[in-house]
Amino acid sequence: MDVAEFRRRGKEMVDYIADYLENIEQRPVYPDVEPGYLRNLIPSEAPVEPEDYNDIIKDVERVIMPGITHWHSPHFYAYFAAASSYPAMLADMLCGAIGCIGFSWAASPACTELETVMLDWLGKMLKLPECFIAGTSGRGGGVIQGTASEATLIALLAARCKVINRMRASNPQLSESEIFSKLVSYTSIYSHSSVERAALIGGVTMKKVSTDKNFAVRGETLKKMIEEDKAAGLIPFFVCATLGTTPSCAFDRITELGPICNEENIWMHVDAAYAGSAFICPEFRPLLNGIEFADSFNFNPHKWLLINFDCSAIWSPFSSFVLQHWQIPLGRRFRSLKMWFVFRTYGIQGLQTYIRKHVSLAKEFEKMVLADENFEICAEVIMGLVCFRLKGSNEINQKLLERITKLREIHLVPCQLEERFILRFAICARTTELRHIQRAWSHIKKLAYEILQESSHCLKG
Amino acid sequence: MDVAEFRRRGKEMVDYIADYLENIEQRPVYPDVEPGYLRNLIPSEAPVEPEDYNDIIKDVERVIMPGITHWHSPHFYAYFAAASSYPAMLADMLCGAIGCIGFSWAASPACTELETVMLDWLGKMLKLPECFIAGTSGRGGGVIQGTASEATLIALLAARCKVINRMRASNPQLSESEIFSKLVSYTSIYSHSSVERAALIGGVTMKKVSTDKNFAVRGETLKKMIEEDKAAGLIPFFVCATLGTTPSCAFDRITELGPICNEENIWMHVDAAYAGSAFICPEFRPLLNGIEFADSFNFNPHKWLLINFDCSAIWSPFSSFVLQHWQIPLGRRFRSLKMWFVFRTYGIQGLQTYIRKHVSLAKEFEKMVLADENFEICAEVIMGLVCFRLKGSNEINQKLLERITKLREIHLVPCQLEERFILRFAICARTTELRHIQRAWSHIKKLAYEILQESSHCLKG
Repeated sequence: MDVAEFRRRGKEMVDYIADYLENIEQRPVYPDVEPGYLRNLIPSEAPVEPEDYNDIIKDVERVIMPGITHWHSPHFYAYFAAASSYPAMLADMLCGAIGCIGFSWAASPACTELETVMLDWLGKMLKLPECFIAGTSGRGGGVIQGTASEATLIALLAARCKVINRMRASNPQLSESEIFSKLVSYTSIYSHSSVERAALIGGVTMKKVSTDKNFAVRGETLKKMIEEDKAAGLIPFFVCATLGTTPSCAFDRITELGPICNEENIWMHVDAAYAGSAFICPEFRPLLNGIEFADSFNFNPHKWLLINFDCSAIWSPFSSFVLQHWQIPLGRRFRSLKMWFVFRTYGIQGLQTYIRKHVSLAKEFEKMVLADENFEICAEVIMGLVCFRLKGSNEINQKLLERITKLREIHLVPCQLEERFILRFAICARTTELRHIQRAWSHIKKLAYEILQESSHCLKG
Repeated sequence: MDVAEFRRRGKEMVDYIADYLENIEQRPVYPDVEPGYLRNLIPSEAPVEPEDYNDIIKDVERVIMPGITHWHSPHFYAYFAAASSYPAMLADMLCGAIGCIGFSWAASPACTELETVMLDWLGKMLKLPECFIAGTSGRGGGVIQGTASEATLIALLAARCKVINRMRASNPQLSESEIFSKLVSYTSIYSHSSVERAALIGGVTMKKVSTDKNFAVRGETLKKMIEEDKAAGLIPFFVCATLGTTPSCAFDRITELGPICNEENIWMHVDAAYAGSAFICPEFRPLLNGIEFADSFNFNPHKWLLINFDCSAIWSPFSSFVLQHWQIPLGRRFRSLKMWFVFRTYGIQGLQTYIRKHVSLAKEFEKMVLADENFEICAEVIMGLVCFRLKGSNEINQKLLERITKLREIHLVPCQLEERFILRFAICARTTELRHIQRAWSHIKKLAYEILQESSHCLKG
């Protein structure tokens, strides 16, 4: 393919993408395929001779689209949002064309420098404490990671390195492996699975901390565990607190956890993967209070800040963590271009408007649920997530979700809170409007009533 | 930005990209900026109000381009190649628009399935042993990682998990931390820094293995180290062999290392990050012999197989490694689309032609170097890399590289082999032709002669 053909095909692709996103509502949000569907649709080996581009692009509709879960459909309410916006896509095209591998300043100075400045822009939007901002002479700063999983791992490794150095300095008779075996880290029972995984990779123990009735970790509970572990000769060294947990968007109390960690010389990492974006709004910023106690802070602009995946931001007040590099991979794409394009195209006001719209849609959905006494709300609605269920058994709620999934009009996933099977309704797409959630609620209610009648449950209201 | 504006801006961006790549030769390959240059060119905070897109796009030339090292310029001979092709860029646009986060089959079946099949296509192109191919019932298979750093880490973690399980089963009295402290892994003194980093992250010892005069690790050397370590009560568990090392593109002898690893129950990971792409050519496939002894194999199609970064492929004969997931991050982009577009657009023949062209250009450059008796070749030229230097001191070669870098007509980086400072000339860009390397060689020779005359060295020939 020469440059002339690229000009033509590139413009066709722009139109294909625009058509796809403009008409995405018409596609069933969830695919109707069985595992292994794709292998039968394409040859088992690569072609020896070049194929015609027209045949390739035709296969996108024939082979790929039937197997796509459409994350950017306004009928998609599963997991948490994946961000998507036109300026981010334009920036990503440019990123691909420049195609530098930014593993050092010299490998492409603009790549390193724009990233540092963009993380400053974003840090200031969140009103992070001054020590998290690089500026021209700061010791802190931020970098982009691929995902929150990597950010958590990096933070845990930095904490591990720091504690080992400290322990060896104060107890030269201890071997590294003796220290290693005594290390213990903590996180909520509702933390994301990647937190436990980080400990597994780092080869250290991680203990699960139970929560209060709002599913939030409290200082007192943590303090008790730390004291018991210290008494048993263990070395508490790392806490991963979550602001906006995956199951219910609960907020661990970092104003309580922070002082304990600081006093005990424990690294506090704050994971706000989903909720972090909302802190650009003054009304939500109080949820970030306590961040001044943190040793590292991460959230995913690629979830809720209109910057396409991947773009996970991590900050720390330390000049270069304890690790020499702030990431697992050496190579990196020029991802800050996406931030630059999006921040400037929307402006802070535009981004705030976007966050507020999602939160208000969630509140509207909450009202609909509350207005029907067959249903209950299962966790406080603070951001764009509503946890709800039919009053009744887990089985009946499982059945409801199965029907929803089977009909493919909307897509949800469940969670479990205190052994209760719960439906998560997350406002996800950039184009979700009130009419979509009204339609979604009618659909859910209709299916629920059918189930209630079948099960001869008493239909209320 | 609405969909209509995206259609317009997207097409403008396609033209900008086409223009950029068509005229890239005219730009100095290496930027003329000082660290910190960018911060002064843009505001210190994000704008509150939206900005005009025209202002953003104008800033690409004003702010970004002056700080770019142009990896896809035919004057770029540094590091190793970063792949770039038009079909890969088109596929990446589509990937961004679909924007699914493929962390499970249900999250987008096509994303998981196309990846499995593409890794089979690629594995077959390399003639990997059958056990590395997923097929419909295979226990092995491949997945895409972001970088070779992540692939090495995954392999090491899988090996660590496997050995700990084995040791605990056979010696129930041993604690996990006792086993941990005895684990030892091995890699060449010429391995990439990410290999040592993987051991650091995994919390295990890694020993550096010296090489023969071709900079290749030999079986005998490894065997001796393993025996000494076993005698000292340590547990050898992991070897990372490299096919195509970063400094000189040397090939560790995996036909010798493999049987030793298999006999000793040591996980052998084979890292062919750069050279791996060449194994699709029958004449280079013998360099992969011994792969049948490996527990995992990785190379980077994003280096030399025309698939834009990131796309690093790893295979293993085990159904799901020992780790539950084959990667550090949970989320993943739909990267296999790039493979699918590229393999079909070029066909295997087109890809082979591309590899052969780079190798033959390297051989041409080698001839030019050999024809001038002021210079010497420092390592066998097997792939697209030529290691050369002026006969004489390290200082004189350092001076030569400094002048090359300062003039910004071409871009090279050095390496060190047995304490000798060496210049690496890697064929990198897709568009590099004979005329470019002829021009590069004239330029290098001119600068070298100036230095030789200044230093009153005897100019030969």
